[in-house]
Amino acid sequence: MNDVKIIKLKESILADNDADAELLRRDLKERKTCLINLMSAPGSGKTSTLLALNRYFKDRIRWGVMEADIDSDVDAKTISEAGIPSVQLHTGGMCHLDADMTRQGIQALGQEDLDLIVLENIGNLVCPAEFDTGAAIRMTILSVPEGDDKPAKYPLMYQECSILVVNKIDTLPVFDFDRKKMEAFARKCNPEIQIFYISAKTGEGVKELADHLLDQIRIWNT
Amino acid sequence: MNDVKIIKLKESILADNDADAELLRRDLKERKTCLINLMSAPGSGKTSTLLALNRYFKDRIRWGVMEADIDSDVDAKTISEAGIPSVQLHTGGMCHLDADMTRQGIQALGQEDLDLIVLENIGNLVCPAEFDTGAAIRMTILSVPEGDDKPAKYPLMYQECSILVVNKIDTLPVFDFDRKKMEAFARKCNPEIQIFYISAKTGEGVKELADHLLDQIRIWNT
Repeated sequence: MNDVKIIKLKESILADNDADAELLRRDLKERKTCLINLMSAPGSGKTSTLLALNRYFKDRIRWGVMEADIDSDVDAKTISEAGIPSVQLHTGGMCHLDADMTRQGIQALGQEDLDLIVLENIGNLVCPAEFDTGAAIRMTILSVPEGDDKPAKYPLMYQECSILVVNKIDTLPVFDFDRKKMEAFARKCNPEIQIFYISAKTGEGVKELADHLLDQIRIWNT
Repeated sequence: MNDVKIIKLKESILADNDADAELLRRDLKERKTCLINLMSAPGSGKTSTLLALNRYFKDRIRWGVMEADIDSDVDAKTISEAGIPSVQLHTGGMCHLDADMTRQGIQALGQEDLDLIVLENIGNLVCPAEFDTGAAIRMTILSVPEGDDKPAKYPLMYQECSILVVNKIDTLPVFDFDRKKMEAFARKCNPEIQIFYISAKTGEGVKELADHLLDQIRIWNT
């Protein structure tokens, strides 16, 4: 088992986050590392989706995870136990990460040769959508129990993300979740959004998501 | 069916939110209105819990609901269709409500004789916990699918709330949710927190929650 490294993030002093994010994105492009900003509401299954993806990632790419959290280190422990290089970022109450905090995390992860770094952002559908972290890909997870109306209520998140993962589809029989309604809401925010249906628990649909991500990572890194 | 009144909230100009919240709380105490600040992650079932409570509230108290949302009016429509006076508050991207925004909402609701007003806050476990809205009671909902570790990850929310409602208990067989673990995490944040287990969908446990709230409202209003 790997040790969990816990990093207390300092608040950024840079006024222009957008410019800083653009700088970080260029740096990462140069060193051929694809950064994914993974966002969702609390409990949608960000960590378990990453564990499910690892089945397809582990022999094909070198990857690491930055777990952002307000206080705990539950997620970094889980990721670390799966043998994935990881670091726990503590925001000390902050509700989102910006580009400079992301850079601090990447430095703490300290691995120069990764094809992919995933930033698991704070569980929050509002604030993280407002801040460019320098990521190449923005991805959001909506879990079935949260309901099909989330894209109507938190439109910016779906507008900003290119990939929408609908998780916990094994629980579809238990909830009133209208896929068509959800897709219509999501496409109203972002007509180009790509939607994947998965169950991180049973593994259903995860291969299709992994294949798509591996393609995107390859394109970014060449 | 009642019409849905949509109010665009103005950003507060008051620097000292705590002092303003205290003022609002005193005003409400004087007019014998109990304000509940209801907070949770997106999709925990805030609106459906209110609808379930209405079965016990409707003949015993006069009450109204303020639905805070970033953009949509889905929830206010639902509440209004149940015959509960309601108003939709649009924050225009803001991730929480403060005391002044709450006051704007109460004025828009425009009913002087209510025993109870519920503020359904933005679905967010982080920012709303940081702002005193002037409420007499702070209540949070955790739904079973979100997982038992939420109090460990979002401690401030559980620290600030006196009532924790665990919703969607009808789905306990489908999820790995350890009640004892969750309670231990929650009580570590707040040893006094009162925990109620309900299913807004089946009605299980709702009477006990309603009775407790009616008691609290009575105590505040006398």
